[in-house]
Amino acid sequence: MVTVKDRVRFVETDMMGVVHHANYLRWFEMGRVEYMRQAGVYLLDLMAAGIVFPITDVSCNYRASARFDDCLLIETAMAELSKVKMVFTYRVVREADGVLLATGRTQNAFTDGAGKIVRLPAEYYDRLQQMFTREEPR
Amino acid sequence: MVTVKDRVRFVETDMMGVVHHANYLRWFEMGRVEYMRQAGVYLLDLMAAGIVFPITDVSCNYRASARFDDCLLIETAMAELSKVKMVFTYRVVREADGVLLATGRTQNAFTDGAGKIVRLPAEYYDRLQQMFTREEPR
Amino acid sequence: MVTVKDRVRFVETDMMGVVHHANYLRWFEMGRVEYMRQAGVYLLDLMAAGIVFPITDVSCNYRASARFDDCLLIETAMAELSKVKMVFTYRVVREADGVLLATGRTQNAFTDGAGKIVRLPAEYYDRLQQMFTREEPR
Amino acid sequence: MVTVKDRVRFVETDMMGVVHHANYLRWFEMGRVEYMRQAGVYLLDLMAAGIVFPITDVSCNYRASARFDDCLLIETAMAELSKVKMVFTYRVVREADGVLLATGRTQNAFTDGAGKIVRLPAEYYDRLQQMFTREEPR
Repeated sequence: MVTVKDRVRFVETDMMGVVHHANYLRWFEMGRVEYMRQAGVYLLDLMAAGIVFPITDVSCNYRASARFDDCLLIETAMAELSKVKMVFTYRVVREADGVLLATGRTQNAFTDGAGKIVRLPAEYYDRLQQMFTREEPR
Repeated sequence: MVTVKDRVRFVETDMMGVVHHANYLRWFEMGRVEYMRQAGVYLLDLMAAGIVFPITDVSCNYRASARFDDCLLIETAMAELSKVKMVFTYRVVREADGVLLATGRTQNAFTDGAGKIVRLPAEYYDRLQQMFTREEPR
Repeated sequence: MVTVKDRVRFVETDMMGVVHHANYLRWFEMGRVEYMRQAGVYLLDLMAAGIVFPITDVSCNYRASARFDDCLLIETAMAELSKVKMVFTYRVVREADGVLLATGRTQNAFTDGAGKIVRLPAEYYDRLQQMFTREEPR
Repeated sequence: MVTVKDRVRFVETDMMGVVHHANYLRWFEMGRVEYMRQAGVYLLDLMAAGIVFPITDVSCNYRASARFDDCLLIETAMAELSKVKMVFTYRVVREADGVLLATGRTQNAFTDGAGKIVRLPAEYYDRLQQMFTREEPR
C-alpha cells in the first residue's frame, strides 16, 4: 500500500460547504501515479514508449465529507494486474481523526495512442508485479 | 429520460489527447440537475429548505474516449427513488456518430446541513415521483 | 463579438456559495474557441499542423459573483492580432438581469510543439484577420 | 515570502501536453491560504465570523510550461494590505532547474456574506500586518 498526503484546497469545495465528489478521482489518480512511481514505472516513460493507460472503470463510495483544509491520506493498493489492465483500490482517510471518508476502485487498460489494447512490455509489467507481490493483503 | 448537450472544452482534455475521466462526473451532475429541474425540483430551493443531497456512490464505465470539441449528449434517467435517496443512471453519447462513450450511475442521499439523513418533504418527493413514473423503462 | 451561453454548474461553486474565480478562465476559453470557430479556424486543425497556442497572459476583474444555475453570456472580442500572437477581451454577463459579472483579457502566442514561437500561416491568419476587421469596436 | 511545494497532476495537463493555464490560479490559492495560515489567520475562522474574501482581480504571466510530474515551488508574498483588501504576488518555479514558469498577482476584498465590503477586524488584520512587516522586499 502506498500512502500520499494532500490537503483539501478551497477550490475543491462546493456550495454544500464540503469537497465536491469529483475531486476524489483526482486523489485516486495521485495515489495511482505514486504507486507506479514507487514500482519504478513512470507514466512519462510509458507515454514515450507509445503506451497510454485510459481508465475503463471507476467507482467511489462516499462515507463522510472531506472539508476545506482537512489533511487527507490517500491509501492506494493494487488489486489486480495483468498485461492488459491494472486495478487499484483506494481509501481516503482524514488524518486528524482517522475517519474513513471514501473508498474507491479504478481499472486502467493499456492501449496504444489509437486506443487499441496492447500488452504491457515486460520491463514495466515485471516492476509492477514485484510491487504487487510485496503488498500485504488489505 | 432527460438529455442535455454539451461540447467538450479544451480544459477537459489531458495529455493523452482525450477527455480526462473525471469530467464525466461533471456531466452526470449537469444531467441530474436538469432532470430535477424538469421535475420541478430546484436545488437552490432544497438548499434554502435546509436539505442537501450529497453523492454517496458513483460509478462510471468508459467505452470510448470523448475528444476536444465533440458534441455530447448526456442522457439521464432515474433508476430508484425513495424519501431518503435517489439513484440516476447516465449514458454519454457522441452526437456526431451516436457512439456510446460511457455509462454511469450515481446515488444521492438527502441530509440536513450536518450530514444527518432526512426524509425528502412531500412537495419535492411527489414531483420527482411523478417524473419517475412517466419515464419509459430504458 | 461572439457570445456563448453557459449555465453555472454545481461543481463550479465553492464554499462561499458562489462560483470559484478560476472558472472564469474556462469560460474565456469557451468564448475564444467559439470566436475562432466562427472565423473558420479550428484548434484541431492548428494542432494537426503542428501549431499550438499557449496562453502567455491572462487577467480578470471580478465585479459581482456568478451563482449556481445562473445563465451566463460570455462575450468575446478580438483586441489585437498579429502572426505571432492574438489578444482577446471578454465580458461575462448574467443573462437574467444583464449585470456585468467580470471582464477579462487573454493573450495567446503561436508556437510549435517545442514552445518555439512560429508565425501563423496565412490560411489561418487571414480568416482571423477578416473576422477581426468585421468586428464593431466595443 | 511563503513557499509551498506541489507536484503537477495528470489531470492538470491538457492536450497540448502541458499544464492547462487555469491551474495556476489554483496554485496561487494554495500559496495564499498557506501565507495566511502562517500569519495565524485561518479562512475557516474568517468564515465563521461572517467574513468572506472574494477575489476581485487576478493576473498571470506565463513564461514557460509546467509539465506532468514537475515539482513546483509556489512562492507567495504580500504586496498590499488594508482593512478592506489584500494583494498577493506569486512566482511559480520548477524545482528541478529553478526556471521561473509564471508570475501572478491577486487582490481579495473582505465582504460579508451578502457581498458588502467590510473592514477586517483587528485580530486578523494585525496578524497579517505583522507577517507583512516581517517580509523581505522581493
